[in-house]
Amino acid sequence: MMRIIFLLSLFFALSNASVQDFCVANLKRAETPAGYPCIRPIHVKPSDFVFSGLTPGNTTNIINAAVTPGFVAQYPALNGLGLSTARLDLAPKGVIPMHTHPGASEVLYVLDGSITAGFVSSANAVYVQTLKPGQVMIFPQGLLHFQINAGKSSAAAFVTFNSANPGLQILDFALFANNLPTDLVVGTTFLDATTVKKLKGVLGGTG
Amino acid sequence: MMRIIFLLSLFFALSNASVQDFCVANLKRAETPAGYPCIRPIHVKPSDFVFSGLTPGNTTNIINAAVTPGFVAQYPALNGLGLSTARLDLAPKGVIPMHTHPGASEVLYVLDGSITAGFVSSANAVYVQTLKPGQVMIFPQGLLHFQINAGKSSAAAFVTFNSANPGLQILDFALFANNLPTDLVVGTTFLDATTVKKLKGVLGGTG
Amino acid sequence: MMRIIFLLSLFFALSNASVQDFCVANLKRAETPAGYPCIRPIHVKPSDFVFSGLTPGNTTNIINAAVTPGFVAQYPALNGLGLSTARLDLAPKGVIPMHTHPGASEVLYVLDGSITAGFVSSANAVYVQTLKPGQVMIFPQGLLHFQINAGKSSAAAFVTFNSANPGLQILDFALFANNLPTDLVVGTTFLDATTVKKLKGVLGGTG
Amino acid sequence: MMRIIFLLSLFFALSNASVQDFCVANLKRAETPAGYPCIRPIHVKPSDFVFSGLTPGNTTNIINAAVTPGFVAQYPALNGLGLSTARLDLAPKGVIPMHTHPGASEVLYVLDGSITAGFVSSANAVYVQTLKPGQVMIFPQGLLHFQINAGKSSAAAFVTFNSANPGLQILDFALFANNLPTDLVVGTTFLDATTVKKLKGVLGGTG
Amino acid sequence: MMRIIFLLSLFFALSNASVQDFCVANLKRAETPAGYPCIRPIHVKPSDFVFSGLTPGNTTNIINAAVTPGFVAQYPALNGLGLSTARLDLAPKGVIPMHTHPGASEVLYVLDGSITAGFVSSANAVYVQTLKPGQVMIFPQGLLHFQINAGKSSAAAFVTFNSANPGLQILDFALFANNLPTDLVVGTTFLDATTVKKLKGVLGGTG
Amino acid sequence: MMRIIFLLSLFFALSNASVQDFCVANLKRAETPAGYPCIRPIHVKPSDFVFSGLTPGNTTNIINAAVTPGFVAQYPALNGLGLSTARLDLAPKGVIPMHTHPGASEVLYVLDGSITAGFVSSANAVYVQTLKPGQVMIFPQGLLHFQINAGKSSAAAFVTFNSANPGLQILDFALFANNLPTDLVVGTTFLDATTVKKLKGVLGGTG
Repeated sequence: MMRIIFLLSLFFALSNASVQDFCVANLKRAETPAGYPCIRPIHVKPSDFVFSGLTPGNTTNIINAAVTPGFVAQYPALNGLGLSTARLDLAPKGVIPMHTHPGASEVLYVLDGSITAGFVSSANAVYVQTLKPGQVMIFPQGLLHFQINAGKSSAAAFVTFNSANPGLQILDFALFANNLPTDLVVGTTFLDATTVKKLKGVLGGTG
Repeated sequence: MMRIIFLLSLFFALSNASVQDFCVANLKRAETPAGYPCIRPIHVKPSDFVFSGLTPGNTTNIINAAVTPGFVAQYPALNGLGLSTARLDLAPKGVIPMHTHPGASEVLYVLDGSITAGFVSSANAVYVQTLKPGQVMIFPQGLLHFQINAGKSSAAAFVTFNSANPGLQILDFALFANNLPTDLVVGTTFLDATTVKKLKGVLGGTG
Repeated sequence: MMRIIFLLSLFFALSNASVQDFCVANLKRAETPAGYPCIRPIHVKPSDFVFSGLTPGNTTNIINAAVTPGFVAQYPALNGLGLSTARLDLAPKGVIPMHTHPGASEVLYVLDGSITAGFVSSANAVYVQTLKPGQVMIFPQGLLHFQINAGKSSAAAFVTFNSANPGLQILDFALFANNLPTDLVVGTTFLDATTVKKLKGVLGGTG
Repeated sequence: MMRIIFLLSLFFALSNASVQDFCVANLKRAETPAGYPCIRPIHVKPSDFVFSGLTPGNTTNIINAAVTPGFVAQYPALNGLGLSTARLDLAPKGVIPMHTHPGASEVLYVLDGSITAGFVSSANAVYVQTLKPGQVMIFPQGLLHFQINAGKSSAAAFVTFNSANPGLQILDFALFANNLPTDLVVGTTFLDATTVKKLKGVLGGTG
Repeated sequence: MMRIIFLLSLFFALSNASVQDFCVANLKRAETPAGYPCIRPIHVKPSDFVFSGLTPGNTTNIINAAVTPGFVAQYPALNGLGLSTARLDLAPKGVIPMHTHPGASEVLYVLDGSITAGFVSSANAVYVQTLKPGQVMIFPQGLLHFQINAGKSSAAAFVTFNSANPGLQILDFALFANNLPTDLVVGTTFLDATTVKKLKGVLGGTG
Repeated sequence: MMRIIFLLSLFFALSNASVQDFCVANLKRAETPAGYPCIRPIHVKPSDFVFSGLTPGNTTNIINAAVTPGFVAQYPALNGLGLSTARLDLAPKGVIPMHTHPGASEVLYVLDGSITAGFVSSANAVYVQTLKPGQVMIFPQGLLHFQINAGKSSAAAFVTFNSANPGLQILDFALFANNLPTDLVVGTTFLDATTVKKLKGVLGGTG
């Protein structure tokens, strides 16, 4: 019995020293450049480390596709651990439009169906491949990339990023779904004003 | 025509400046602390970014399970991009034994079946959960964790790490499958010599 | 005299220990994820730390503008030091088209003239400002941004990045100046095929 | 006098710009993934940078050894500086049992006595050495390692880690000193239930 | 119309996931090792990303020079983005005295005049160069360096650092403008006490 | 027997995936910004992880002190592990003169005797303390600091840095032991030419 007490005293002394194996985000507190402040370890439950939100998304929309994120905002246990997740669903003809993740590289694992995915490098080279279930593709950080359904049935993928907060900039939304003035879009993309205004109309942009 | 030439001259000037969006590993060259030297971009093919090796592993073994890695050694395009992958297969009664990844946190996505997974923190707290297909669990860097088949049919998972080279230290192999002397194992684990020698026998260890 | 000898022996012992304040790139050797191998310190000259290549660029082109990079490929002393530079020249009506730097944030300092610059965030918000000489603007990593001449005379800017190799992806080149098939561009951007083919024609793209 | 005033005005302007050479932890505030918020520099005293807590530990316990940590929780000035410390005391027959530091590599300097130390790599190779006073050994991040008294008198060591919060996971505590169910321990370690239950008994575990 | 609604619902779902492209500092909150907590994105204005404070400094002082910082304390949008800025003004005979930046490398761009700049390496080698407008020089992290006006007219430079908070330690201030006791300065620099006391007098030091 | 074979096949498959727990430096190869290329794991011996070179240094010199480094050049196993070591010896009246480590913070542990140590911050504040055996002091990265023997007997300390290559810039050597012209030293330090020339004479400098 004394032995246990001696040993446990060692144990408590040591565990006292080791407070941050993880840092489950307290989303109510202000973020810092390294992520959110942690909730106290005593309030962390085993279920906090599990995320159940990557259910099939609703693809009844203009792109016949859905992105369901499991970033730190949805999955606070990711905070500080340098990883996040998402699920892609692509109905037939579904497209995840051209986009970038400013803060992370991405690995995509095909769950179902067939997906044509690609990215373009800084050197303007094109890397496009058509993937089957079980295949993996990596997209280097910050480069424009896309995924489209390459088959006749639905397709789905699980993706992970090496940041709890990878960001997501969808090209069409950046150009056409906000108040960036048409003349600035025209001037910086060489698209014509008619095209820009039409897409602003479709996507709810102004200016 | 002149316009194109002018523009392309701009293009070539710029692309010249941007040589490392990615760094596909030249595995024949000596590694550095940041990874392998890159093969020249001109030799990189679109298919290099795809990995097809995460096929179901052979589970006819003592653990009724298999780990199929997609680390930088198998998937050189990961080099320098801070991500790697693996597939876990668990036949009925299959177990991925207690292990750590010294250099990365891990996200696990259940593909099939039911998996009970868990880790223990530095503060000695236990975080165990049973997961269904589509659920995700995160394991913080360097902590002991395990996965076992929780159902009666086969189970499988796709895992990613936030390092191209996460490492993998399997507890039983570290203790019993090498030449670490029995008395050192006994002295540092409080296991008895009989148990240690028996497991060394099963796992091919000596000493 | 003995004192000097004793002291110098200390000095040489110590200097022996300190071999990497800097790592001037050996561009002939294969790059690694952390940059190029270093040339030996004994071969490094004071002038290696100076870059004289940021001279006014030729703006007689379709964009009436020029980007002159001082990245590691042009300025090898930057290697491993986490910084690089460029000069922007904008003739009247000049535009640096919409682009990203996948691997770095950017600070812009206006040298001459007036420049309207802007970026769009992941949350699709627009941040546009018109800048005078001596003003500074920062562009967060990986986000789409642009600069246009806001005045009637020439404008110029000096920019720095927090990476020796920030990358540069120009939107129009990524979409229209390579062999990315027209149907993939159409499918992932919602531009119409006529527009895509026209811009491919202007920019020398195929497919 | 005017000169001093001018110079001091320069000085205060400059010092204003340089607020974080260090970040002494405010342990009362919630931690972040990068460490604790700082106390204000004006409240930092010279003595904050000194730690006097590495006194010989009490080795009258089951392991005949003690670990005395100087991590951020004990030594708040370490916060954000990427270093921490500890003292090991080993009475005759003393053992620091098999353990890992999930978040740091470790350097050990032998102060007194003789210590046999070792670690096992991911490739299952064993690196064991017996050390005398003044010798140093390095243990790479996250790998299982141990230290035992190799002599007949007491031994002691000073260790440092390249993180203010390296973590500490003691194998026996992780397996036997908590509520991790016996069948999970058995299933994931190949130890037999009798051994597991016995060690749980000694170490105060349940389940 | 339905299309727009569907698409916008996608948009809001996604933008929800991407909260930290930038982290404009809330300077009223306690700093962390990674920088200040962020103000909420909704309160960030486009003008926050612009800094107008790099105006010519007052050089009517003992050094005939001025350093005007644009660090995170002056330019909160830099927080977490790994960059900061400053302006140097050197009247004829102006000198930016020997100093270091403990936390960043520096790039200097000459705006006007002629500047002789230099640094000394850990190996005690001297790297001095005289620069004209448009030339760039890089100073590796933490090394002693200086800038002096090399011409007869005023000179100015724009500098950037790869940290939002690079620090600035001016050698003479560190040695002579505080309460570091004269005997400690003498003992650790080999300067004679008369010299030390004289400079303490000029710079307002005590002790 | 079959079981062993099955298990070992698992083992070899896995160990194949985990090649870089450590990266012992091949000092004959060119360094990179992240350190030296690794020697092959098969050539790494247990003794490579031990460093025996921190023996008492020769203090019969002008400073009555010695610094014995255990940086990557002396201790190749440190490469990539983010730690290095040194031993300080101070005879009576011994002084480690004012210096900086451009690339690392430092922890000092007093082995013998009494040491007065101190550093000066960017904000020009002085942090000086006198330390006894067993006490620890931390010196933040890049700041000027010193150690002097505070007693009448010899003193010694063990120091560690959070970089395998911390650098070491000794103020007097940087100013007086090279060819930095006297007028530049005078101009950038406010020392008088007589003092500078005298110290250049003592320390072997020219110019």
